[in-house]
Amino acid sequence: MTTQTPVAGVRAAVRRVPAYPFTPTNEPIKLDQNENPYDFPAELKTEALSRMAAREWNRYPDLHADELRRRIGAFEGWPEAGVVVTPGSNVLIKLLTELAGIGQTVLTVSPTFSVYTLEAQLLGARLVEVPLNADFSLPVEALKAELGRHEPGVLYITQPHAPTGVVDSLAAVRDLTEAAGDWVVVLDEAYHQYSGTDYRDLVRAGEGRLSLRTFSKAWGLAGLRLGYALTSPELATQLQKLVPAFNVNTLTQAALEVALEQPGYVQARVQEGVQERGRVLAALADHPTCRALPSQANFFLLRTPDAAAAYAHLRARGIVTRRQDSFPGLAGCLRIGIGTPAENDALIAAVTELR
Amino acid sequence: MTTQTPVAGVRAAVRRVPAYPFTPTNEPIKLDQNENPYDFPAELKTEALSRMAAREWNRYPDLHADELRRRIGAFEGWPEAGVVVTPGSNVLIKLLTELAGIGQTVLTVSPTFSVYTLEAQLLGARLVEVPLNADFSLPVEALKAELGRHEPGVLYITQPHAPTGVVDSLAAVRDLTEAAGDWVVVLDEAYHQYSGTDYRDLVRAGEGRLSLRTFSKAWGLAGLRLGYALTSPELATQLQKLVPAFNVNTLTQAALEVALEQPGYVQARVQEGVQERGRVLAALADHPTCRALPSQANFFLLRTPDAAAAYAHLRARGIVTRRQDSFPGLAGCLRIGIGTPAENDALIAAVTELR
Repeated sequence: MTTQTPVAGVRAAVRRVPAYPFTPTNEPIKLDQNENPYDFPAELKTEALSRMAAREWNRYPDLHADELRRRIGAFEGWPEAGVVVTPGSNVLIKLLTELAGIGQTVLTVSPTFSVYTLEAQLLGARLVEVPLNADFSLPVEALKAELGRHEPGVLYITQPHAPTGVVDSLAAVRDLTEAAGDWVVVLDEAYHQYSGTDYRDLVRAGEGRLSLRTFSKAWGLAGLRLGYALTSPELATQLQKLVPAFNVNTLTQAALEVALEQPGYVQARVQEGVQERGRVLAALADHPTCRALPSQANFFLLRTPDAAAAYAHLRARGIVTRRQDSFPGLAGCLRIGIGTPAENDALIAAVTELR
Repeated sequence: MTTQTPVAGVRAAVRRVPAYPFTPTNEPIKLDQNENPYDFPAELKTEALSRMAAREWNRYPDLHADELRRRIGAFEGWPEAGVVVTPGSNVLIKLLTELAGIGQTVLTVSPTFSVYTLEAQLLGARLVEVPLNADFSLPVEALKAELGRHEPGVLYITQPHAPTGVVDSLAAVRDLTEAAGDWVVVLDEAYHQYSGTDYRDLVRAGEGRLSLRTFSKAWGLAGLRLGYALTSPELATQLQKLVPAFNVNTLTQAALEVALEQPGYVQARVQEGVQERGRVLAALADHPTCRALPSQANFFLLRTPDAAAAYAHLRARGIVTRRQDSFPGLAGCLRIGIGTPAENDALIAAVTELR
C-alpha cells in the first residue's frame, strides 16, 4: 500500500476507513463469494438476451423499475408499493444507513456482514456492535439492552447469519424485533432459501421492518446485480427517495423478468446445494485437526489450526476460499462456499490432506 | 399525494424531502430526458449481446469494474487509477455528497441539475445555492465569496449548464476552480460532446477536481446506466471506498467494452444533433410569443407565455417535454431535447402553432 495524500475537503470518516478488502484470484474453483456454482439456465439466457435485443438502450429505464417491482411483489406475495429494488442489496444497506443511520445509531452483532459496519463508519453513524454468543447465536438480551440505550436508528439481523451460517429461532428474532420499537429493523435474508426460513411475517408486523433479499445467491444471478427490500409502503416511500433515479438498468430488468416468469430452476439448485452441504460437512466430520461448523446457508466455516496455511494449501490445489480469522471468535476460520459436486469432491480431498 | 405516516427512526431530513419529481408518459415523441434519439447501432448491439451470452451471470462482476475503467482511461487519455465508474453519474453525485458533503457544505448555482441539491438535502449537507446571472452565466464572484465563507465541501459546476445549455468561458471556470482551494470541485460534463468543450486540463491541475461524464447522452446508452469520474488517483482512492462493491453489472460492462472498441458512431450522431439544434433554433427564431434560448447541449429552453398551456399543447400533439417554470429565472420555460429530424419537424410545427 502506498500512502495517499488525503484531499483536505474529504471527510475524515472516509479517510479513516480502509478500502473494501477483496483481492480477485484466478483459481479454477471459486468458493470465496458464496455464489451459485451454476449459470442461469441456457434456455432462459437465450430468452433474456432476446428481450434485451428488443429494448431501446438509448432510453432511460423507468424511474423505480416498476414492472420489476410488480413482478417481485407477485412472486413474494407482497404489495408492489412495499418493494424497493437496487443494483445489489449492498446498495440497499448504504441507503438504509442514509435513511436512519447518519447521525443516529447502527446496531448489529460481531462478526457479521462487513457492509453494515463499513457504511456506518463511512456515513457517520454511531456504530454499536454486540458480540455473538459463543455458539454464534444472537445475543438477544444484550441487543435489547442496546436498543433501549440509544435513540432509534438501524438494527441489522442476518438470517441465516453470515459468516457463521447459523439460524436463530423465530421466537428469538421476534423477541428482538418486538423490542425494537421505532428502530428500523433490517432482516437480511440473502441466504434464506438454503435454510428454509422466512421472516416476512415479522416484517408485516411493523412498518419499520424490512426483509432484504437478492438474486445473487439461490437465483444464480450475482453478475446482474439485483437486491430488493420487502417492507411497508410507508417505509418504502421514504427509502425510495434515497434510491438514485433510473438505478436498475434495462438489461438486468429484462433478464429478471424472465427469471421471475420461469423460477422453477431455483428450487432444484437449492436442493442440490443443501444436499451437497450435508455431504461436505459429513465428509469432514472426522477430520483430525479441522472442524467444519454446521451451517444453514450455501457456505460453511472451517476452523483450522492455521487459517493462513489452510488458505494457501487450498489455493495451491486451485480452490479459493475466504479467510475470516481476523474476526472476533473466528480464529483459524475460512469461509467456504458450496460448489458443484465435482468442486466439492476436490475441496473434501484437499481439506482431508490438511493437518 | 396521500399523507404518509413517517417511521420514527427515519431521519427528519429524509422525511422532509419530496420524492423525485418524474412522471412517465407514453407520448410517441420523447423530448423530456435529453436522451439520444437513436438506439445503439444494430451491429454493435448484436456484438454486445454475443459477449453477454458468453459471460457467467452467476459470478459477481469484478469489484470496481477494472477492465472497463482501463478502457475508459485509454479512451479519455486518463490514468486508470483516476477513473471511477458507477451505474449512472447520479450515483457519483450521491457518493461525492457522502465524500465531502455530509456535515459540510455543498455549493452550487440555481437553477441547476436537481440531484446536487436533492442529495445535499437528503444526506445532511449545508446547501448553498447562488443564483445564476441574468444571462445564465456563472456568478463567479459570488461563488468565490461563498467558497471563502465556508469550510471546504463540494462545489458543483455544470458545463454545458443544465437546464440552460449555457457554456461559460474557460477563463471563468478556471478562475473558480483555482479559487476553490481544498474544496472538491465537480465539473459535470454530461453534455460536453455537444458543446465541444473539455475541462480535463482543469481537473489535472488539482487533486480535488473531477470531471463527470456519462454514456447516457452522446453515446446513446442511457438504458445501460454508466457514468464515470475522471480525477486524481488520490481522490479516486477515497471515492472508490464509497462505491458499493460489484456495482456495475456484467451485462453493462460487456456492452460498454464494445462501445469503447467501436466509438465511431458517436461523432456522427453528435454532428447531427448539433446541426438539428441549429435548425430548430433558427426555425423558431421569429416566433411571435415564444423564445427559443441558445444552447450548447442536446436540449434547449423554450420560454413561453404559459408553461402549463405550452406543455399541454405539445403533449396533445404527441410530444413530451419537461416543465422548468418552477425554477427561479425560468418562468414560462420548457426544456426540450433535440430528437430525430422528423421529431424535430413535428416539434417545430407544434411550437409554431403556439400563441
